[in-house]
Amino acid sequence: MDFKTEFKPLTVQPQEIESKSFEIITEELGEHPFTPEQYPVVQRIIHASADFELGRNIVFHPGAVEAGIEAIRSGKKIVADVQMVQVGISKPRIQKFGGSVDVYISDPDVMEEAKRLNTTRAIISMRKAVREAEGGIYAIGNAPTALLELIRMVKEGEAKPGLIIGMPVGFVSAAESKDELRKLDIPFITNLGRKGGSTVVVAAVNALAIMAEKKA
Amino acid sequence: MDFKTEFKPLTVQPQEIESKSFEIITEELGEHPFTPEQYPVVQRIIHASADFELGRNIVFHPGAVEAGIEAIRSGKKIVADVQMVQVGISKPRIQKFGGSVDVYISDPDVMEEAKRLNTTRAIISMRKAVREAEGGIYAIGNAPTALLELIRMVKEGEAKPGLIIGMPVGFVSAAESKDELRKLDIPFITNLGRKGGSTVVVAAVNALAIMAEKKA
Repeated sequence: MDFKTEFKPLTVQPQEIESKSFEIITEELGEHPFTPEQYPVVQRIIHASADFELGRNIVFHPGAVEAGIEAIRSGKKIVADVQMVQVGISKPRIQKFGGSVDVYISDPDVMEEAKRLNTTRAIISMRKAVREAEGGIYAIGNAPTALLELIRMVKEGEAKPGLIIGMPVGFVSAAESKDELRKLDIPFITNLGRKGGSTVVVAAVNALAIMAEKKA
Repeated sequence: MDFKTEFKPLTVQPQEIESKSFEIITEELGEHPFTPEQYPVVQRIIHASADFELGRNIVFHPGAVEAGIEAIRSGKKIVADVQMVQVGISKPRIQKFGGSVDVYISDPDVMEEAKRLNTTRAIISMRKAVREAEGGIYAIGNAPTALLELIRMVKEGEAKPGLIIGMPVGFVSAAESKDELRKLDIPFITNLGRKGGSTVVVAAVNALAIMAEKKA
């Protein structure tokens, strides 16, 4: 058998792969508790993780999706906790509205300050972020310490995020940081448990950006 | 209650978080089928995904770990399918041995050729990669079409990878592409099913790089 022929049905175009995937997700997910505004975010998260358990455990603050779309449409900054999140977010849609996707964790001043205070670069990067990105979207997929520091600053009135997407993955402090996030009465998207990570957070931001574009 | 005090126990240093996480993983995973050489890769994948189901379903070609370590130690290139994989891989360990982490999917010549042939950039990027990175490690976390094209080139004698880490995530062609990879008799690391993605592939490469460094 000719190998190229054998594989023909699998090598479809990316756009076709995506729509077929979304059909499968909707079919296999079945009943779910999400609103029509929330569902595209959940769908894209499942698409990026192939994990229905993760998808079912996404938790939205009631105003989260609207706040995210509004932040993107008004050109607010998106703050990524790590570079993987930054590069994963589709830029043209964000830039179209005047926004940008920024990451501070490897900035020389952040690294220096973290060393001086004997704390994590993740924590210091959030302190810098709240100075640089008021009203922005905070996309945190990795460092629970970053999320906890952001929550602290919100509680103490030092930070006013437009939306926090807080889904750090991990075994130590990750689930706990998300429990704290759910107690806030500001827009957030998070999930229950240990799962999460860069790809999941990227999926959430990209879903919001697509919705922001459609509204245009 | 003082908020900073309340959170004190959670904000530990990244190194402590990592070792504590690894302890939890080993304890919760319990019995497993992996060799002592394979286990650090599995452990780091679970660390990056918090997903034991994914971890248990990792499949190694018998020579995979040794081949990966050898490729890194001899300074072979690491090819990432997308930029998220490229930025996630820890560079100093790779560069120490003279290697680099490269991604071709957004190269102008790749984009042009994909357009000309009406095919995916992922496929064309793999054709470029085999010319640029003989004996290298191919880290594919996203595009099944990239993995299928690489498999085709291996079968037809056009590609000689040192190791293929093939874990594209997704609902269309992803699991099938991994089924094809497992039939090859060259070093591979893959997983059963739909899960995978950038963070998982990055974890595998970083685990190999740490082992390569320890052997030094």
